[in-house]
Amino acid sequence: MKTVLILGAGLSSNALINYFTEHAEEMNIHVRVGDISLETAQSKTKGSKNSSAFEFDVFNENQRLSEINAAGIVISMLPAAMHPLVARSCVDLKRNMVTASYISQEIKDMDEEARAKGVVIMNECGVDPGIDHMSAMQMIHRIQARGLKLLAFESSTGGLVAPGYENNPWKYKFTWNPRNVVLAGKDGARFMHNGKFKYIPYQKLFQRIETIKVPGLGEFEVYGNRDSLMYRETYGLRYLETMFRGTIRRPGFCEAWDTFVQLGATDDSYIMENTDEMTHREFINSFMAYRVDIPVEEKLALYLNIDRNSKMMERLRWLGIFEDTKIGITGLSPAKILQKILEEKWGLDPEDKDMILMQHQFDYQENGSRKKIYSTLSYIGSDRQNTAMAATVGLPVAITARLILEKKIKLTGVHLPILKEVYDPVLKELENYGIKFIEEEITMPMDTGSV
Amino acid sequence: MKTVLILGAGLSSNALINYFTEHAEEMNIHVRVGDISLETAQSKTKGSKNSSAFEFDVFNENQRLSEINAAGIVISMLPAAMHPLVARSCVDLKRNMVTASYISQEIKDMDEEARAKGVVIMNECGVDPGIDHMSAMQMIHRIQARGLKLLAFESSTGGLVAPGYENNPWKYKFTWNPRNVVLAGKDGARFMHNGKFKYIPYQKLFQRIETIKVPGLGEFEVYGNRDSLMYRETYGLRYLETMFRGTIRRPGFCEAWDTFVQLGATDDSYIMENTDEMTHREFINSFMAYRVDIPVEEKLALYLNIDRNSKMMERLRWLGIFEDTKIGITGLSPAKILQKILEEKWGLDPEDKDMILMQHQFDYQENGSRKKIYSTLSYIGSDRQNTAMAATVGLPVAITARLILEKKIKLTGVHLPILKEVYDPVLKELENYGIKFIEEEITMPMDTGSV
Repeated sequence: MKTVLILGAGLSSNALINYFTEHAEEMNIHVRVGDISLETAQSKTKGSKNSSAFEFDVFNENQRLSEINAAGIVISMLPAAMHPLVARSCVDLKRNMVTASYISQEIKDMDEEARAKGVVIMNECGVDPGIDHMSAMQMIHRIQARGLKLLAFESSTGGLVAPGYENNPWKYKFTWNPRNVVLAGKDGARFMHNGKFKYIPYQKLFQRIETIKVPGLGEFEVYGNRDSLMYRETYGLRYLETMFRGTIRRPGFCEAWDTFVQLGATDDSYIMENTDEMTHREFINSFMAYRVDIPVEEKLALYLNIDRNSKMMERLRWLGIFEDTKIGITGLSPAKILQKILEEKWGLDPEDKDMILMQHQFDYQENGSRKKIYSTLSYIGSDRQNTAMAATVGLPVAITARLILEKKIKLTGVHLPILKEVYDPVLKELENYGIKFIEEEITMPMDTGSV
Repeated sequence: MKTVLILGAGLSSNALINYFTEHAEEMNIHVRVGDISLETAQSKTKGSKNSSAFEFDVFNENQRLSEINAAGIVISMLPAAMHPLVARSCVDLKRNMVTASYISQEIKDMDEEARAKGVVIMNECGVDPGIDHMSAMQMIHRIQARGLKLLAFESSTGGLVAPGYENNPWKYKFTWNPRNVVLAGKDGARFMHNGKFKYIPYQKLFQRIETIKVPGLGEFEVYGNRDSLMYRETYGLRYLETMFRGTIRRPGFCEAWDTFVQLGATDDSYIMENTDEMTHREFINSFMAYRVDIPVEEKLALYLNIDRNSKMMERLRWLGIFEDTKIGITGLSPAKILQKILEEKWGLDPEDKDMILMQHQFDYQENGSRKKIYSTLSYIGSDRQNTAMAATVGLPVAITARLILEKKIKLTGVHLPILKEVYDPVLKELENYGIKFIEEEITMPMDTGSV
């Protein structure tokens, strides 16, 4: 009987742990779940047969080495910064490892040694990054196998509240780590459009938005997601002239969010003064010039050129940013204060469901015409515990880990899930869970651009 | 005969080295000037009597310790990051030290040890920081000594091209480190206005400008200079309700500079693609959306809402940013490319002179009325070698060092020049060099704000 060692039992581990406890007998495995909080680990294994929960401290070297040594495969769902430590031990002890996080340079540097030792460290196996890579590479390889030339690749993903539950003026709620949402976009975006390199700084990111249409769900906004250029290398598409990755929000979100960007309210680099006594209204006012002859609302409208009767102003007002509510905590950065204000409004209600939405667009040339394939995934969560986010992050990690454990994936070294032997079986099994892309193809005149 | 050890012989050391070589006989000192380039050091001592030049590598521990050990006083004009290393050796070897740079936490932490060993490490003795502290504290202490309450303190400094030489549409040239000019303002500004804390992020800094009037020189623009709040502590003015420090530019500069901020052209956090083949025009275009139906100039005007026939557009055009000139160097960040473009236009001509301009405003209450003292320094350099910047940085450093060497300043520990025993004699001697503030006082109605 082999042990599947799962390190980290946070919200994103739910579907992952369930997958293994449900398949434990059939797979003849023991599921061992470690978390810094024993209680959290126990609440996830729920005492199911063939499982055990334990308190795990990644910095306890003895514990880390003995747990990894006893494992058939290691899955790290710990904070991303801790992965290199786990990977180091996995390589040393010749154990295979899977994570859902972006690969780091430290882990990249273990490639040669991992190969030499016959170990695989498989990164970016969640949803974004993860399912995005797998589904994109499957289609790209399919187009290339037909001998056709790819002209453009654009891919966007969003973690959103599900249709029917988007019942606030922002049509947005926190379905994932609120801090990451507040800090999103800080590095701006870099991409390629019709052979031209394009760079958008943070202060313009939420103004330079694109619109996508999703069958059955309507229109959405997309803003650029960090460095799309490096994926030309990763995907083997150096020749590609249009390459763009984005983040999906519902219409109106980006324009209103840009208010906080322009004010400086998403800054996390310094601590504000007297934040315990500061009110929401004073917080917003502190980013604008001293002036006592007009109310803060009017000052904001003048400062950022907002129509006072617009939906955008309604969105801002609804968040309570003009209210005299005290923040009540000392030593916070602007970003932390904004997060606190947002958490009071953007929390999920007990009945709320979330949605993962992903849309790829592949343009290619065939018989003198330009064709475009839309490949769209929408997946709705079951409830607040069993979210779409947890399922789409956890299931591909679980399936990849199982395929490695059962030696159906035989790679060695440090990898992303961009090879056919990984993405084909993972995407196939994901379909059993309703995680499935719908494809649509259109033909365009040859001189039409995109994005 | 004591040795004055000067480490670093760059542009800013000229006036400093001249001061000591000119006073060497009278002071009975030997002036020892070390630089990473022996040639640079030699060109500054010019073989004058009582001086020697040598090649100095701060990371050569033997050399560092033996030179410092042989010195009567140590002046570090090295890059700021190297000061802690020099300070560490000075404390270990019980040698006094003076620098013109902002104090670092590492040096602050040496305070107790320096006191115990009877050593003084005097920081921020240049112009800004330096003369600004000295002149402000002198006036603040004078107002406080009269038993009057300070209501507001605002202070602005600029390194500019002198009147008569501001012969380009920007009325600006590089009179100091171009890289620092390109990156200026990145941390935004924090200050206090009428009891309210105010925060301006980088993306609004060059839009939120103030105007000051300088007698005989006309109007100037001021943008916020980093964290003014911490000086309430440093200056012993926690009660103060208005505290602002700014940077001075000529009218129109900030609005036009903001173009580069908004585009993202001052970003230094990533390397652009293919910068060797890129032209100035392509550089600017890369920050805007793909669009081929209008020229780049028009795209920029639309993107940032610039009037195409404005002076601002003339300023941008004059810089050559729309030209097809190749950048010709690989691996540059946007900020480095912008710096290269600017250096071609903003370099000083052989006959150009620079100017240091500093203006303090002190508001205080007396007999029921609000009074305001304007205290203004304008100082024009002699030529491209003997600049106002070098004089106003080097002379206060030299005078402070001399006062310490001659035991007229007897402080121990880590200090800024904010104590009477430092600023009084330094400011007095600076007047001999024409570095002198002119004061003007006005009376205002009590309810008038400022900034």
